[in-house]
Amino acid sequence: MLPATEAARRLRDGRLTATELAEALLDRIAAREPAVRAFAWQDPASLRRAAAQADAEARAGRLRGPLHGLGLGVKDVLDTAEFPSQYGSPLWAGHRPRSDAACVALARRAGALVVGKTVTTEFATRQPGATANPANLGHTPGGSSSGSAAGAADGFFHAGFGTQTAGSIVRPAAYCGAVGFKPSYGTIARGGMKVMSESLDTIGVITRSVGDAALFMAGITGRDYGNPEVKPGRAPRLGLCLGPTADQAAPETLALLERAAAACAKAGATLVPLDLPAAVAALVQAHPVVMNAESAQSIAWEVSAASSQLSEGLLERMQWGANQGPAALDAARQVFWNAQAAFKDSIAGLDAILTPSAPGEAPEGLGWTGDPSFNFIWTCLWVPCVTVPVAQGPRGLPLGVQVVTGLGQDSAALAWAEWVRQAVVG
Amino acid sequence: MLPATEAARRLRDGRLTATELAEALLDRIAAREPAVRAFAWQDPASLRRAAAQADAEARAGRLRGPLHGLGLGVKDVLDTAEFPSQYGSPLWAGHRPRSDAACVALARRAGALVVGKTVTTEFATRQPGATANPANLGHTPGGSSSGSAAGAADGFFHAGFGTQTAGSIVRPAAYCGAVGFKPSYGTIARGGMKVMSESLDTIGVITRSVGDAALFMAGITGRDYGNPEVKPGRAPRLGLCLGPTADQAAPETLALLERAAAACAKAGATLVPLDLPAAVAALVQAHPVVMNAESAQSIAWEVSAASSQLSEGLLERMQWGANQGPAALDAARQVFWNAQAAFKDSIAGLDAILTPSAPGEAPEGLGWTGDPSFNFIWTCLWVPCVTVPVAQGPRGLPLGVQVVTGLGQDSAALAWAEWVRQAVVG
Repeated sequence: MLPATEAARRLRDGRLTATELAEALLDRIAAREPAVRAFAWQDPASLRRAAAQADAEARAGRLRGPLHGLGLGVKDVLDTAEFPSQYGSPLWAGHRPRSDAACVALARRAGALVVGKTVTTEFATRQPGATANPANLGHTPGGSSSGSAAGAADGFFHAGFGTQTAGSIVRPAAYCGAVGFKPSYGTIARGGMKVMSESLDTIGVITRSVGDAALFMAGITGRDYGNPEVKPGRAPRLGLCLGPTADQAAPETLALLERAAAACAKAGATLVPLDLPAAVAALVQAHPVVMNAESAQSIAWEVSAASSQLSEGLLERMQWGANQGPAALDAARQVFWNAQAAFKDSIAGLDAILTPSAPGEAPEGLGWTGDPSFNFIWTCLWVPCVTVPVAQGPRGLPLGVQVVTGLGQDSAALAWAEWVRQAVVG
Repeated sequence: MLPATEAARRLRDGRLTATELAEALLDRIAAREPAVRAFAWQDPASLRRAAAQADAEARAGRLRGPLHGLGLGVKDVLDTAEFPSQYGSPLWAGHRPRSDAACVALARRAGALVVGKTVTTEFATRQPGATANPANLGHTPGGSSSGSAAGAADGFFHAGFGTQTAGSIVRPAAYCGAVGFKPSYGTIARGGMKVMSESLDTIGVITRSVGDAALFMAGITGRDYGNPEVKPGRAPRLGLCLGPTADQAAPETLALLERAAAACAKAGATLVPLDLPAAVAALVQAHPVVMNAESAQSIAWEVSAASSQLSEGLLERMQWGANQGPAALDAARQVFWNAQAAFKDSIAGLDAILTPSAPGEAPEGLGWTGDPSFNFIWTCLWVPCVTVPVAQGPRGLPLGVQVVTGLGQDSAALAWAEWVRQAVVG
């Protein structure tokens, strides 16, 4: 499959049509979707119509924008006018919003074609959908952005929208062998998203390459993400960090981080052990309070009106969240703000942090999407995170490493992630 | 009209039924709504059904919660499953969401009955609806929470939900002679709200008394807002502040603030002139950038798909917002964070700030909802603000004064606002 960056070039200079590209995606989907089940909704006819229209516009000399003709998977917590938007919940079965989510409208304005809605866990929390890991169908793709990760990794679309409240972009991307990018909090507006935790929920993308992530993010936001595939003129100063959840790392993850660090050092990087301060470690307790207390408010209608259609686990967590009470929520939010301030000092003098993307390989079975231990801290800190696929684990499933930078240093996160990837995979 | 606090007592001990209360509201609405036009949608039959059900529950010994049987107006940027939700825009005419907004679900869980949807300006921005000021029908009620302010002031419901991005709760409440409370940012979840500016939009309430605002906020959030009508054991230390937009104050506003300060001093308060630091004054430039750049993203679908159905003024501002570019948006958000930090120091040693609620009386005519000059700074700072009605202006329209405290000091804001009100009105 062509990288989106290359496909975009060919579409621009007429060597490729959107229809040809769409047919290639549809062939791949026809071959693999029955096993992978990345989609909550997918309609080849609609994609063909959109591609034909894009081609007509191109023939008239009107390219919509930098994403002209590229395929986009839309996580099913994001509204689309054209397709059902079901939030991974039977309570929302068949729901047809009137509008596209803001991010979908922005991507379409830039020329992207919506390939389909991708499977999300229930309201982007834990209860999984049917999606399998394309690298090994007996394993979870991770979640909550299950279908966007599996579909991006398996070539169903050039980019999938993901959302992250704990580890819902980076973890599934790592499990499936894709690139996952959670930008700085607030980069992409959440209008038309089923938001659970307002302090945490962040929209990002899952792609097959770092360059493709930069291309889509630039197309959607109008921001300059540079070209992460152009080698920076120097090697980075990297903080090597396992963080307060280090004990969750599988042996293969510890070994990988060591190997990645060695490869980066060999490529010229300076590696510095990084201990996160207590103010950041306090996020371990604060994150579930903010996440569940805010979510319990956000889905108050669902809990009130139709609790029998919510999973038992979700109901329990919403009850737990509501039971924390306002004082605990306020205190946990204060922990976020303190941690954000403290982290600024931690990262001073570093270009980026090198840290695990997930505890290990994707767990076996489809009943549990895995553990966000190595993700939620960065989500609380609002900082950009990129996972890049660099290895395979003992069972042959993909392993990623994660690169994190300071708030707003998003293009640096992408550039150093690609630098690290190249250093490790050689 | 009974205050909600008193009506709630009588409902609890059986001296009043929800049906009697609803009929009283409906009588008032029948008499006044044709002139005031507070509602975007109102259905007496639905309110009667809900009241009958509340009465049945009460007879069975089951009161839902602290808002049992009280009437609520819901600003039409907040979704309701039972009524159309049209966001003040012809583009959303007849839109019927599947669910209630989170805040509506929480209020109903506490027992509140939805009286109707209240008029909002277009997406809670500037283009006004049909609502008139109940104190003088030739004048604007203010906006964007036009119908909630007019309806609360005129006795159509006990509380109206408002939302504030610049001055959309406090200003219309002041213009209509009501109490307006914008709580600390993030107090009420925004699920099911048509959010425009994620960094600013805050849900609050408009009522006839400070006690009623506390009652509704406590019912909705489960937070303890105390009883602001119980006199504190001491007088406050108040910062007297016109702020960086002082030149927008009409003579009656300058005179009122002076008179209010004198009355507070007479009642025992210590008054301290407060100059806001430059970091806070910088919000004058930063606020429109954040508001319009974020809003342009949030309504990207509307702008893309149906710009002909947006007002010309809104389209212009969205274009201006988009044109600011990401660097300007990031810089303006940084101004917010710097201002929030600086404000903490400004307010140290003060119980509250006393400041105008609006430049003056409600402007004449219904074409312009007035100027949020004395509101947007506090919205950027995320701090609680309360306007209390204390006087009439030269044309006989209501004037309020505004009380502001530090982030999270919401019950103090209500308590000192009521203290100030009593000191001024005697």
